[in-house]
Amino acid sequence: MTRVRLDLFLSLDGYAATAEPTPDSPMGKDWERLTAAYAATRTFRELVFGDTSGAGTTGIDDRYARASFEGIGSEIMGAAMFGLHSFPDDPDWKGWWGDRPPFHTPVYVLTHTAPRPSIPMEGGTTFHFRNAASKEVLAEAGEAAGGNDVRVGGGIGTARDFLLAGLVDQLHVMIAPIILGRGTRLWDDLDGLELTHTVTSEVAESGTIHVNFTR
Amino acid sequence: MTRVRLDLFLSLDGYAATAEPTPDSPMGKDWERLTAAYAATRTFRELVFGDTSGAGTTGIDDRYARASFEGIGSEIMGAAMFGLHSFPDDPDWKGWWGDRPPFHTPVYVLTHTAPRPSIPMEGGTTFHFRNAASKEVLAEAGEAAGGNDVRVGGGIGTARDFLLAGLVDQLHVMIAPIILGRGTRLWDDLDGLELTHTVTSEVAESGTIHVNFTR
Repeated sequence: MTRVRLDLFLSLDGYAATAEPTPDSPMGKDWERLTAAYAATRTFRELVFGDTSGAGTTGIDDRYARASFEGIGSEIMGAAMFGLHSFPDDPDWKGWWGDRPPFHTPVYVLTHTAPRPSIPMEGGTTFHFRNAASKEVLAEAGEAAGGNDVRVGGGIGTARDFLLAGLVDQLHVMIAPIILGRGTRLWDDLDGLELTHTVTSEVAESGTIHVNFTR
Repeated sequence: MTRVRLDLFLSLDGYAATAEPTPDSPMGKDWERLTAAYAATRTFRELVFGDTSGAGTTGIDDRYARASFEGIGSEIMGAAMFGLHSFPDDPDWKGWWGDRPPFHTPVYVLTHTAPRPSIPMEGGTTFHFRNAASKEVLAEAGEAAGGNDVRVGGGIGTARDFLLAGLVDQLHVMIAPIILGRGTRLWDDLDGLELTHTVTSEVAESGTIHVNFTR
């Protein structure tokens, strides 16, 4: 059965980073602090940066990083996550994920702008652009997943849309033990999520608190 | 060295319960949900309810409960935590902690009302009422602690006053894995607390996430 999965980075005070991406600092300083433990994992270094030297952490953070890439058949992300707004006038801009994005599946980019042609990339990723309701795009992504899972890749606005619509089967939150004091609040209007999902938590060697909501 | 310690109950979305106490339901429904795992511990049942049968949980939650009672020489709490507002016109009202409160130390109750006489209770607890700044009361409580620690007993408003003033050496937060969606937000204006304190976390058998800020 195709499940909808979501992995998020959060501060202890419940904030996700929301800085607009640029090619230099894709998500800003807060994002770097929230994702430091994840970016240090062997899986991230290998699958996102192509570092096959075996460097990187191999503990609990890495186990979750590994799992987040497994069994994914398609992906949905917001326009900012793709980088659509960074160079709005450049028709050749292919997002900030590089020539060989780490998805290797169809990726559905949600956008309110005019339709644009799909972009096939190296390694099996194809970016499709959809101006449609979350549920409709999810139906298409589910079909494309071919029995594997659909990953909602963020950003936080897209993630919250899917959560508030009750569309997420597995939410994995990586809570960095820092008080950020700013950003977008994840949990607003999600009270009672523990009534529809089972919650388990685990603390990694890095201090990251992994919280899982599963139904 | 006398340290200032603080134990708090929090929801995953960062809310502490704030219901006004009444003799029947001292802190309200949300409070019951936030404190369920703690109230189930053997230590709580023994030290607060006087249940010496040995019933109650004995895992990680109990270890923290036990530690929170150890080495305390005096306590500071807000007026609501004592129950000062419940029967403002009854000069014989001694708070809702029972004839034998579980403190067994001097307890300094912060109040903006007129001074009232101290109340000695069974078991070594004496309630003192102080209309003074946090720092002044802390100095007196520290003196009274005789080399042991001072515990700030809450409620959340008093706790935040001490945290914002930088007076807390050890903050222990018991995070229930529930999204409450209402209450008083603990973390506001405390960003960067991880820079002055070391953070460690641990997940109990109950699912409670214990987060410790220590300096």
